[in-house]
Amino acid sequence: MSIRIFITGGTFDKEYNELNGELFFKETHLPEMLQRARSTLDTTVRTLMMIDSLLMTDEDRELICHQVRNSPEEKIVITHGTDTMTITAKVLAEKIKDKTIVITGAMIPYKFGSSDGFFNLGGAMAFAQTLPHGVYICMNGRYFNWDNVRKNKRTGIFEEL
Amino acid sequence: MSIRIFITGGTFDKEYNELNGELFFKETHLPEMLQRARSTLDTTVRTLMMIDSLLMTDEDRELICHQVRNSPEEKIVITHGTDTMTITAKVLAEKIKDKTIVITGAMIPYKFGSSDGFFNLGGAMAFAQTLPHGVYICMNGRYFNWDNVRKNKRTGIFEEL
Amino acid sequence: MSIRIFITGGTFDKEYNELNGELFFKETHLPEMLQRARSTLDTTVRTLMMIDSLLMTDEDRELICHQVRNSPEEKIVITHGTDTMTITAKVLAEKIKDKTIVITGAMIPYKFGSSDGFFNLGGAMAFAQTLPHGVYICMNGRYFNWDNVRKNKRTGIFEEL
Amino acid sequence: MSIRIFITGGTFDKEYNELNGELFFKETHLPEMLQRARSTLDTTVRTLMMIDSLLMTDEDRELICHQVRNSPEEKIVITHGTDTMTITAKVLAEKIKDKTIVITGAMIPYKFGSSDGFFNLGGAMAFAQTLPHGVYICMNGRYFNWDNVRKNKRTGIFEEL
Repeated sequence: MSIRIFITGGTFDKEYNELNGELFFKETHLPEMLQRARSTLDTTVRTLMMIDSLLMTDEDRELICHQVRNSPEEKIVITHGTDTMTITAKVLAEKIKDKTIVITGAMIPYKFGSSDGFFNLGGAMAFAQTLPHGVYICMNGRYFNWDNVRKNKRTGIFEEL
Repeated sequence: MSIRIFITGGTFDKEYNELNGELFFKETHLPEMLQRARSTLDTTVRTLMMIDSLLMTDEDRELICHQVRNSPEEKIVITHGTDTMTITAKVLAEKIKDKTIVITGAMIPYKFGSSDGFFNLGGAMAFAQTLPHGVYICMNGRYFNWDNVRKNKRTGIFEEL
Repeated sequence: MSIRIFITGGTFDKEYNELNGELFFKETHLPEMLQRARSTLDTTVRTLMMIDSLLMTDEDRELICHQVRNSPEEKIVITHGTDTMTITAKVLAEKIKDKTIVITGAMIPYKFGSSDGFFNLGGAMAFAQTLPHGVYICMNGRYFNWDNVRKNKRTGIFEEL
Repeated sequence: MSIRIFITGGTFDKEYNELNGELFFKETHLPEMLQRARSTLDTTVRTLMMIDSLLMTDEDRELICHQVRNSPEEKIVITHGTDTMTITAKVLAEKIKDKTIVITGAMIPYKFGSSDGFFNLGGAMAFAQTLPHGVYICMNGRYFNWDNVRKNKRTGIFEEL
């Protein structure tokens, strides 16, 4: 079963710049994570952008849609900042009907000891293999339909509407 | 959606005894892992035993079956040593038909930096929510039907027969 | 041999705020670090402030001086942001002559996987036990006299003048 | 200031073999640790053996003595299993008088999340730079003279006689 993983950035892949104390993006940790997971899935990882999702534009979302539509795989995982995950999910859901698309992210960068990202990736890969066509968000151990989820800004938890 | 998690030990939960240099079991790390995952699933964790799966007896497997059958939840995750995971899966599959049971484990203890356990748990929780009734093994990013899987002793990888 | 450890903040103790993606201070990790080090030294840990050293004022430095002078221990370790470590060292050196004072910090927060902080603390505790009275900075595996050190802003490395 | 680091194995460098669940030695982590420490010390790392110190023979100790004596550096750090650290220290002390030799180790392997090894290395490097000629053991945040130390087998703590 083939899965394509698109990287867009977000907390997931942030790193600490020790010279100025700010968080920044270098390269995605996905290949390292898949290796540590001892994954034998047939996966292709493509980095589309490395940005904070608060900075994601309509053009960025068009690019993601375009790439998802044109990828040969029917099963897609997208790593994404949590703040605007639901916006991208909506754009994808309106345009793509014939794929299973799971968007996931992390509350803590993978490189920081206590990240939830590795667990979330495990869940997203599993949901991509088993859920019917549609667009889903995988966070907090669960999957949510794209049109029935929001991030609670106060708690950081994803919940149904 | 309610999930019951049964702990049986295995590499997953092993720790290092600094006084004699041997690996041993103390308590399960599952609650700590679910917290780190920011899971909002309705989960109940029960420790049935804390043993190396090479030491698991027929009686131990009977106990696991009994507990799975009598748990009110329809969705079950079992953490288990990888060496005899498939044996327990077979015993469960012969006796229980009306639940989704996902057995998972780890090649490296969760407490050691490079464990695959957190990813595997994320996958197992996801598969438990989405797969139809049956008994499955979740390792290497994938799920396997109980009767079509073996652990390759040489590589440590789970593969189809 | 008694050592007093004063906490002033700095990268050492920073944590990641998962709700707004910024770094912040909660509590010092020193007690946890000493326990992990299995330290049997007679140490007292006191938090004086929890700030980024770029924000440290003259008043803050007066407070540190006051606390160092009035502590019964002759051997002092101070955790401090790296950016203005040398300024605090100078203030201390001008006022206190009868103690061994070792200032240390970290380039990466202790809570992030790849921190240098634990190594630096081991060195600072050792230098405090063995160096003669004076004010020193312990970074990059070395100790520097307070009047012969600067942080190279470009590389993040401490070097002699 | 030049420091030579000799590797002999011990818990410090042990790794987990995921195929048979046993601990084993691959390569030393010292270079990786020095890099993470951002050390700018002039260090040379030499692996003499990779063994459990309970298996160290008289010949092994002769080899260590020989290498220490013939190294151009006056300051030596040796990583070593904790169980027989004091025996090696005695052999070295009887034969070598004109160097500062600091033996250190770890109660938990460096590769396991909660190791004391990185702290101990920071201390050992610092003691090697500051202590007079002699043979010392660096554990639990302290240094001990070779002839006034034992490992308490019950607690795992090093203490004076």
